[in-house]
Amino acid sequence: MHVVLCQPRNPLNIGAAARAVSNFGCGGLRLVDPFDLAFREAVSAVGGAQVLRDAVVFGSVAEAVADCSLVVGTTAVGHRELQHPLIGIEQAGPDLRNAAEAGPIALLFGSEKFGLTNDEMSYCHWLTQIPTSPETPSMNLGQAVAVCLYEVIREQPAQPAWPQHHPMHGADAEQLTVMLLQVLRESGYTNRIVADSLERKVRRFLRRANFANRDAPLLLGMLRQILWKFRQ
Amino acid sequence: MHVVLCQPRNPLNIGAAARAVSNFGCGGLRLVDPFDLAFREAVSAVGGAQVLRDAVVFGSVAEAVADCSLVVGTTAVGHRELQHPLIGIEQAGPDLRNAAEAGPIALLFGSEKFGLTNDEMSYCHWLTQIPTSPETPSMNLGQAVAVCLYEVIREQPAQPAWPQHHPMHGADAEQLTVMLLQVLRESGYTNRIVADSLERKVRRFLRRANFANRDAPLLLGMLRQILWKFRQ
Repeated sequence: MHVVLCQPRNPLNIGAAARAVSNFGCGGLRLVDPFDLAFREAVSAVGGAQVLRDAVVFGSVAEAVADCSLVVGTTAVGHRELQHPLIGIEQAGPDLRNAAEAGPIALLFGSEKFGLTNDEMSYCHWLTQIPTSPETPSMNLGQAVAVCLYEVIREQPAQPAWPQHHPMHGADAEQLTVMLLQVLRESGYTNRIVADSLERKVRRFLRRANFANRDAPLLLGMLRQILWKFRQ
Repeated sequence: MHVVLCQPRNPLNIGAAARAVSNFGCGGLRLVDPFDLAFREAVSAVGGAQVLRDAVVFGSVAEAVADCSLVVGTTAVGHRELQHPLIGIEQAGPDLRNAAEAGPIALLFGSEKFGLTNDEMSYCHWLTQIPTSPETPSMNLGQAVAVCLYEVIREQPAQPAWPQHHPMHGADAEQLTVMLLQVLRESGYTNRIVADSLERKVRRFLRRANFANRDAPLLLGMLRQILWKFRQ
């Protein structure tokens, strides 16, 4: 499992996240566009120094999750209306654990101040949330990472049936997104005014849909054929 | 429930503990002999400022737990031989929750460097532990507080919640199938020889995909637009 911190600002929080990854033996750390590139010196990474050294920096969420078949975002919700299924972390733990056994998955955390942006969320299949108090819903980044990873490794007897097939890899889902958007543009479906929100809508929709890995060639082939036909 | 930090050294950790207390609405914070008395200015207490202001400082564990009917210590164990019953935090959660409803209880955390001393442990009825990796057992203080409090307020989940949306109605799924097959035919994707098996393939695929009911108009609109474009 990859813990992906999107635009983290404080190196102490990055260090704390690295320590939690190490405490719970949960894969590695990926950073998207960190504010302070000196994060590798974070003193808060006691015990997580190796995880911090091995942390990989990406320029975009798309690149950071390209090899992941499941992308789950974290949110304290609050005022925003969510466009994704939301599963409490206490219920999501087994799903995340099972998915991680099948292949690389990503757990996304937004910046300390604003959380995940709508654009970052559009890469997620679903969202999860820690059951915090309504008066103080927003957790410290390092603490939120620790609680989520704890829940993932927490022993539970329940056997969730989901997912039943090998989910589509992140890179395939993104290729599908790009090609579908191209089809929509060339068909005249895309209104320039709503192009941005449509792009997010399409990306969200394709993640929410439970496509199997083996569906990728089928879908890409269909879209390729439609584009070919447009150009005749 | 009182979160009791014994000889905490770093004001940032005290602030983070205050924030966790506030996030999980778990009573208050007590400090035994803190190293730095300027802890109330900790910037890490975002959202926990009130808890930090209300934190009470004691000179000894005895005073800090004097009004508590249950005292539970936290430990990463390691090399020390324990003289106490040890209960994993995932099992201890309900016990702590029930006891806290009956009267004040204390959850003790040791100093960042050494954990609880034998003397501090001697005030405990039993000990609890977060299931960390044997290679990196020791957690950051603020993160350990967050994980323990999370477990105390954690609800036992009933059933995995996925999927949370209303699945697409059979009629919509079939309309989608028919229209997609039409697009594939008009685009030249459909080879006459395999038309029958493709139809089944598409139908199966569209059912297996976890489309929501609200996705139907979006998808039908896209296909309609593609067909319109073909006929230009």
